[in-house]
Amino acid sequence: MTNIENLCLNLATVGPQFGFTEVLDAGLKHGFSTVSPWRHHYEAIGVGAAAKETRARGVKVDTVCRISGFGPAVSGAQWSAALDEAKATIEEAVTLEARAIIYPGGGVGEGSTIEDARKRILDGLAQIAPMAHEVGILILVEPLHPVVTADRGAINTLGFALDLCDAVSEGTGVAVDSYNVWWDPQLEASMARAGTRVKGFQVSDWLMTTRHTAFDRGMVGDGVIDFRRIRSLVDGTGYAGPIEIEVLSEKDWWARDLDTVLSTARARINLHLGEAQ
Amino acid sequence: MTNIENLCLNLATVGPQFGFTEVLDAGLKHGFSTVSPWRHHYEAIGVGAAAKETRARGVKVDTVCRISGFGPAVSGAQWSAALDEAKATIEEAVTLEARAIIYPGGGVGEGSTIEDARKRILDGLAQIAPMAHEVGILILVEPLHPVVTADRGAINTLGFALDLCDAVSEGTGVAVDSYNVWWDPQLEASMARAGTRVKGFQVSDWLMTTRHTAFDRGMVGDGVIDFRRIRSLVDGTGYAGPIEIEVLSEKDWWARDLDTVLSTARARINLHLGEAQ
Repeated sequence: MTNIENLCLNLATVGPQFGFTEVLDAGLKHGFSTVSPWRHHYEAIGVGAAAKETRARGVKVDTVCRISGFGPAVSGAQWSAALDEAKATIEEAVTLEARAIIYPGGGVGEGSTIEDARKRILDGLAQIAPMAHEVGILILVEPLHPVVTADRGAINTLGFALDLCDAVSEGTGVAVDSYNVWWDPQLEASMARAGTRVKGFQVSDWLMTTRHTAFDRGMVGDGVIDFRRIRSLVDGTGYAGPIEIEVLSEKDWWARDLDTVLSTARARINLHLGEAQ
Repeated sequence: MTNIENLCLNLATVGPQFGFTEVLDAGLKHGFSTVSPWRHHYEAIGVGAAAKETRARGVKVDTVCRISGFGPAVSGAQWSAALDEAKATIEEAVTLEARAIIYPGGGVGEGSTIEDARKRILDGLAQIAPMAHEVGILILVEPLHPVVTADRGAINTLGFALDLCDAVSEGTGVAVDSYNVWWDPQLEASMARAGTRVKGFQVSDWLMTTRHTAFDRGMVGDGVIDFRRIRSLVDGTGYAGPIEIEVLSEKDWWARDLDTVLSTARARINLHLGEAQ
């Protein structure tokens, strides 16, 4: 049935009611031998224990989500806290033997402007990418959908993410998430420009009726995104890493049992992204 | 107190509980001698009566909102209906002695792709712009925020709106709405490219916490948008038309009385957009 063997499960695809190891086991059962946790997922049992549990199962950690404190770090104290958090995240990624850390950079911040937030996000990248590079961790700049520009990530186009990678090239790349980029009229041009800098590929669908700005993503196939086209653009860059499912869906998929979510995710990825391979 | 005399009230800034003439009178009281209705606003009393009421008060109709049937017009029958509706809107704009019609073009449509929807939106523009031009009505392509790309408007950047105007130049221009463009990393470049094609300027704010994808806009000053910067970019194009307030806000501003909404709108425009003039 499948022609996609390299599947990654972003742990935020399943509800917060499930435990870390429970999700790892369910993932393995459904063909996800690679996972991408958010920090709260491994903090629940401690990063050391999380690393032990993944290793014990032969589960690979792909990316760690996420560093996003710099955008809203308006004061010096906020900046220091953001930097400390970023350093801690890099250490955690090392402990987990992860490949990369996702870097949306953060939103605009109260009382600030988008221009200033973007400067802070670039400054933060310039500070942490060398630290991460030194310990073998990639920093993947991820453009988020413009719906969350204010509160979650002021880098909102692939083109602009590449501008950041141009400025800080060593140890950086971009993560392409279908949900975040599908709307962009310049997607094709930006993918061509990105080339081998595409080092992450996540999928979820945009629902015609969206009820929450961050946590109402659709399962692949339930929305309006043309996955064939995006898969083809990603393939065109030469990207050969995992396809990661990441469906932030508080009211729908997070409320379902693990088997339903994971079997559906796997089947949908194959149906909507498989043949192009 | 004010240094902005050319204010326009988009009628969707006040709740649907108020009658057409009631809003006109309140608008005049607060310095809005120009209005932009949506179709349902004048359909409630009939377009002929609406034209009579505006003329009787010396109120000018600026733009009519909106033509957006082509994007989702997947079938031939839907296309005919969209075209009929567009023709009717042009006739109504003539009756109202309006300056222009807003053209977001529409969303993606069920079962379609964004690429196909955009082709339909361009085809629709090519069909109706000449008809409108012949009767002295401008068609203003308006990029909407990417949050409503799927369901309301698949043209979502100023740059892409200008591509449409390049393709259909006679009788077209663009409308710049702060809410729709504030996030765009290419805003400055696109405004420079637009030049005198900027023929509409609307304002509302993006709230840090947004609870609805279409109807939770903020009053100018309540959100994260840097209005000084956008005003300066608009001024740079040579635009000298009205500044139009359009706050779609179902739970907040639509629930307030006319005097509160209109006095606040006027004061906020002066505070946040005034000094740059």
